[in-house]
Amino acid sequence: MRDLDREETYLVDRRGLALELRDLVGTGPVPKETYPGPHGVLAYGEGHLAASLLGLPEWVEEGTLFLLEGGYDLGEAAAMGLLAESGRAKVVRVGFREGVAAYIPPSPLSPYRYLRFLLLALGQEEALREVEAKLLEERRRLTPEIPLEENPAKFLAYTLLERLPLFYAPSFRPLEGGAQTLLARIGKSLSLTPPHAALEFFLTGLEARHEQGDPLAAVLLGGGEAASLAKEILESRVDTVVEVPPPEGSRLAQTMALWYRLAWTAYYLALLYGVDPSDQEVLERLRDLT
Amino acid sequence: MRDLDREETYLVDRRGLALELRDLVGTGPVPKETYPGPHGVLAYGEGHLAASLLGLPEWVEEGTLFLLEGGYDLGEAAAMGLLAESGRAKVVRVGFREGVAAYIPPSPLSPYRYLRFLLLALGQEEALREVEAKLLEERRRLTPEIPLEENPAKFLAYTLLERLPLFYAPSFRPLEGGAQTLLARIGKSLSLTPPHAALEFFLTGLEARHEQGDPLAAVLLGGGEAASLAKEILESRVDTVVEVPPPEGSRLAQTMALWYRLAWTAYYLALLYGVDPSDQEVLERLRDLT
Repeated sequence: MRDLDREETYLVDRRGLALELRDLVGTGPVPKETYPGPHGVLAYGEGHLAASLLGLPEWVEEGTLFLLEGGYDLGEAAAMGLLAESGRAKVVRVGFREGVAAYIPPSPLSPYRYLRFLLLALGQEEALREVEAKLLEERRRLTPEIPLEENPAKFLAYTLLERLPLFYAPSFRPLEGGAQTLLARIGKSLSLTPPHAALEFFLTGLEARHEQGDPLAAVLLGGGEAASLAKEILESRVDTVVEVPPPEGSRLAQTMALWYRLAWTAYYLALLYGVDPSDQEVLERLRDLT
Repeated sequence: MRDLDREETYLVDRRGLALELRDLVGTGPVPKETYPGPHGVLAYGEGHLAASLLGLPEWVEEGTLFLLEGGYDLGEAAAMGLLAESGRAKVVRVGFREGVAAYIPPSPLSPYRYLRFLLLALGQEEALREVEAKLLEERRRLTPEIPLEENPAKFLAYTLLERLPLFYAPSFRPLEGGAQTLLARIGKSLSLTPPHAALEFFLTGLEARHEQGDPLAAVLLGGGEAASLAKEILESRVDTVVEVPPPEGSRLAQTMALWYRLAWTAYYLALLYGVDPSDQEVLERLRDLT
């Protein structure tokens, strides 16, 4: 098994994703003007998590409508954009497409940058400061020079290795898809998320599995009553249950701190699988195609 | 391997879920009064899919707010109900809790009943008629007496047996969770759904899987450009790709026809795994607890 505390393990990180991860806080474009309210947001791809976190409406009659174009859209977003431009609201396009008002290059770490741009555009500097303080606090124990025994991301990566992770985040369900995306895009590996009625799924969906597949590792993101119930249900049904308690703070700061820890976990998982944690060229072709 | 065209295979269906599946159309409560608009809906558990399909707002200032209480809620729904009752809108509770205006008993097939109740309550009889016509049309080739070679649900069940299904429904993403729920609750088995950026997930998430787990079976629900792209990406990455084209009709009718076929598929899958397709007692305990 590869050793995350040895330098040669990091040779597969050919394009230096570790640096982007480490220096993430404070990166990305800042708004150059004031955007009148009310605010709405339509988002896809890398902008999706930020939009879910802020819970803005998808349509406003006046004010500003942000279009976060952070992924392929197969024409739908273009249609939404046209629709948006037919209204009275100012349309502000953000993302990696041509002609955007603020450019955010494609990256598995861009969800943070979309959130940062939005918070600044909405004048929520205080909320952003709290998020960034949490991320910097997390970073102190997540980087490669922190050894395994003091590094929760390294530890979680070893736990997930050769297992099929099952993510459950009862206090903010969209984080599950965020985790699944990080594990795929950085860790190049498969993971599982439950449907809306998650506890029922845990009770019933693991019955006929016949011990034939990868052992499952349930990862409970955040605490609360639902997480405790899930733990109780899952303990006898999966190979291992990992609890990842959130730090203190607002829901926004907690969620982003968990997301950041999962980004590091996905990074270490890629190294353990011996694959480059950066984006593959195929993603660029997909973007051109869509 | 068990044979779906032999009677003894059906002995594990101890509580007769096949009858409930066959006679589903037309069951469930009907509204007893007219509910003034505008209409909103707050839904959890078995009511969730119906609410997503109709796309009603989650809050209305006046008119009627339907509370679909079709699952556990850990206090959140009660809070929502209180909040709802603090407004001027009439609150109509539907589900299996005490004191509801319309009672729908717990069942994996209840998503149809919530939808039917809502369509009737909204005066959308025409849309309901189209859904029910499609379901009856589907039924003609899905019931146990239809032999394998003419029965697409039996066929799909054999394809999914001993594989890990991966559902993708680009034209209506909430159907993926609906499919995952049916496979768990009826088929007692595990399946997978992609995150928001599904095509990227397909391109990256299957890289480091090491051929060690269950072989994956991708199930593409409905057609369109995204499904074609997904097929192209997945063909070289999973064990098998199954396309389930939708019947002609409205998005609502198409989605419910696919859902109904998946319910039969989950039923046959349970039989192939030799487990009872009906609800387990543990679900009742979960409901009492939450």
